[in-house]
Amino acid sequence: MPPAVAEYLKSNQDRFLEELQALLRIPSVSADPAFQPAMQQAAAFVHQQFESMGMTSEIVATAGHPIVYAEWLKKPGAPTVLVYGHYDVQPPDPLDLWTTPAFEPTIRDGKLFARGATDDKGQFFTHLKGAEAWLKTVGELPVNVKFVIEGEEEVGGANLDKFLEERKSQLACDVAVISDTSQYAPGIPAITYGLRGIIACEVTLTGPKKDLHSGVFGGSVANPVNMLCRLVAQLHDDQGRVQIPGFYDDVLELTPAEREQFAALPFDEAAYRQELGVKELSGEAGFTTLERRWARPTCDVNGMFGGYTGVGPKTIVPSKATAKITCRLVPHQDPAKITKSLEQFLRTRGPAGVSLTFTDFHGCPAFVFDPNSPYLTAAKAAIREGFRAEPVLIREGGSIPVVSTLKQILGVDTLLLGWGLNTDNLHSPDEHFTIADFHRGIASGAALWSQIAKL
Amino acid sequence: MPPAVAEYLKSNQDRFLEELQALLRIPSVSADPAFQPAMQQAAAFVHQQFESMGMTSEIVATAGHPIVYAEWLKKPGAPTVLVYGHYDVQPPDPLDLWTTPAFEPTIRDGKLFARGATDDKGQFFTHLKGAEAWLKTVGELPVNVKFVIEGEEEVGGANLDKFLEERKSQLACDVAVISDTSQYAPGIPAITYGLRGIIACEVTLTGPKKDLHSGVFGGSVANPVNMLCRLVAQLHDDQGRVQIPGFYDDVLELTPAEREQFAALPFDEAAYRQELGVKELSGEAGFTTLERRWARPTCDVNGMFGGYTGVGPKTIVPSKATAKITCRLVPHQDPAKITKSLEQFLRTRGPAGVSLTFTDFHGCPAFVFDPNSPYLTAAKAAIREGFRAEPVLIREGGSIPVVSTLKQILGVDTLLLGWGLNTDNLHSPDEHFTIADFHRGIASGAALWSQIAKL
Repeated sequence: MPPAVAEYLKSNQDRFLEELQALLRIPSVSADPAFQPAMQQAAAFVHQQFESMGMTSEIVATAGHPIVYAEWLKKPGAPTVLVYGHYDVQPPDPLDLWTTPAFEPTIRDGKLFARGATDDKGQFFTHLKGAEAWLKTVGELPVNVKFVIEGEEEVGGANLDKFLEERKSQLACDVAVISDTSQYAPGIPAITYGLRGIIACEVTLTGPKKDLHSGVFGGSVANPVNMLCRLVAQLHDDQGRVQIPGFYDDVLELTPAEREQFAALPFDEAAYRQELGVKELSGEAGFTTLERRWARPTCDVNGMFGGYTGVGPKTIVPSKATAKITCRLVPHQDPAKITKSLEQFLRTRGPAGVSLTFTDFHGCPAFVFDPNSPYLTAAKAAIREGFRAEPVLIREGGSIPVVSTLKQILGVDTLLLGWGLNTDNLHSPDEHFTIADFHRGIASGAALWSQIAKL
Repeated sequence: MPPAVAEYLKSNQDRFLEELQALLRIPSVSADPAFQPAMQQAAAFVHQQFESMGMTSEIVATAGHPIVYAEWLKKPGAPTVLVYGHYDVQPPDPLDLWTTPAFEPTIRDGKLFARGATDDKGQFFTHLKGAEAWLKTVGELPVNVKFVIEGEEEVGGANLDKFLEERKSQLACDVAVISDTSQYAPGIPAITYGLRGIIACEVTLTGPKKDLHSGVFGGSVANPVNMLCRLVAQLHDDQGRVQIPGFYDDVLELTPAEREQFAALPFDEAAYRQELGVKELSGEAGFTTLERRWARPTCDVNGMFGGYTGVGPKTIVPSKATAKITCRLVPHQDPAKITKSLEQFLRTRGPAGVSLTFTDFHGCPAFVFDPNSPYLTAAKAAIREGFRAEPVLIREGGSIPVVSTLKQILGVDTLLLGWGLNTDNLHSPDEHFTIADFHRGIASGAALWSQIAKL
């Protein structure tokens, strides 16, 4: 990148951090209607950022949370890059496990702690600052740039898809860029060439129409919590293999080359166990830990509740029990097909005496990037500039539904450039982002424009 | 009973009901420390009742909630009756399922709705009013009477046992009376000759030290909710039989005569299903519904929670999962032995990768009354007077731990005289007590003193 851009990045570091903290103070939790006003506030903040750096920006109302769109298209003939990010965040609970409040950004040990610090406010913000540096020094960008920053990533809302469909021609681009993944390890930046997909649902069993005295009625009526446990228990066999019929039918098995490549990455299983706080790891038999996390499908209960959950005992037979379930998918499992199989599995085995309701939340297929794209070469070079380290090619176990959508609607592949770390507590209490990585990400983002322009 | 007593009962019905409502307004929830002040208030209210009818009364401080003791011992040579009751109530939640608030007593359709209306404030209160009627008219009781009204029945506190041990000689009596059970059906009052016992515990599985992103980490670590479901699912076989080793070893099987007697009772299974709101009943194979409820042991999850329980999806692998479990016991299962077997069962099958904590809340053995006692005859006669109906002899599925304690410490059998109904929603939202049964209970209580005096 030009020396003036690099100098600008260096001399504005403190302000960049302050602006990110201002964004993190806005509790933009998309899942909970109670936080609705904060969603508007966060969108307005991002919009203002684009306006003040001289980009054309607009807050696009949707049936749900608004989308912030911005563009700079003054380089005819140069490639067009679309940057995607999301300003919504996960719910902050359990609140009592945060060292400092989720929406009061706090710096400790060179890290910025707040809900959304890394997922995804802190990460998408780097590309805004990378663009700002060019516009405020060189006066222009070396490529054309479009930004789509949405507010429904954490709830899988359908409104982004509608926006992309409706603005398909306006959004035309050569490649997409998303920073919502992680480095492989501290000091080993990564480009993620594969992602897992997901399906999410909720199942509720209802037995008696109200909670019953377990002495007076117990023994004569099916207990929905016991019954739900019996259903959930059947989801896996003793080898950790998912028992939903057809679950593995369409799974793209790892090639021997991929298994070797994964095995060659530095991975300290003892340190990983310690990081998670478990004595032993566990999962599908026959696969390594990295394989299980990156390229094997799973089925997890994310939350379960039924009956009395307060202090002390309460002698009831509960009326209802609910489990929230997600399956992580791999190429080429079909989310709709798996959701249907799961529902069918639960209904077929649903015990007598209880009724079952099934809610399908959302789903997206898994993704694998073309390893021969020149954009990968440009991204590697940009990261070398920003991080002064060689990036590795990895997969990731999480889902970024928009990657599939961008491919499907705009026909583009997505560069997944991760500035965060797996240990940043994303979706957990004490989420944080290493401040040095925030600045390295901004530098890599600024370098990406010129590396892509060179292609 | 003397005509003056009967006349007093008739002319004071409204005041009796108003006084009960005042007691029900006090939210004396023993399980939750937040309600501590209400416990003191309820004890003071009951104490004041005894004082104003001319009995010697005392509020006895304990390590937990206070006990109200009262006595009238001016009939040397006559039998001594000890009445037990409890002024504490179950937690009122789920609050949103109450038609009117739990602690704002409301009359609808001849029923009084409030937490504690039937369990046990409304029921024990009848014996106070039965005694008051004698003292305010005849000026004395035909027998000696002692009252023990405690505040820890719903939490199985150990303080009552300590009190009974310490005051063993002061509390000496010939028979005990408790009204904390139900009529067999409306208009068919019952004396309950058997009760189930109980053990209660809580089991928590802890996996990763915090909630994890289910994409980044899912598949590599044991999910404590899934694992707890697997444990709970193993508690029963497909025939509804409990799988804890030795669970049925000490069970006193029903005699053919008892099975015939149960079968002869009017029982409308279709109406029972409708009352509970279930399409079919369910339970241990080989037994009728009444047998399952009254004389067969059970194992129920009363509440379970783990991970995210808010609105919408949250893609985590939870850190913890907890189940509250009770087993209803029958004669001669030993609570300590069953608790130990359950803990052992869970620990033996507890999966790798999670740690297990087990909390033993409380337990009590089951109870069967001697059917040849003359006190049963007296009680039947008193109920005929109060209800103008023939009582039946039944068992009950619930537990009244103090029945075993009274036998063990004071050496007396307990008359379980139920004025409530199984449909009174005890332990559930919209708990209530039929007002006519409240007054019939008072009359039966007043008649009981003279019937016992005649023996």
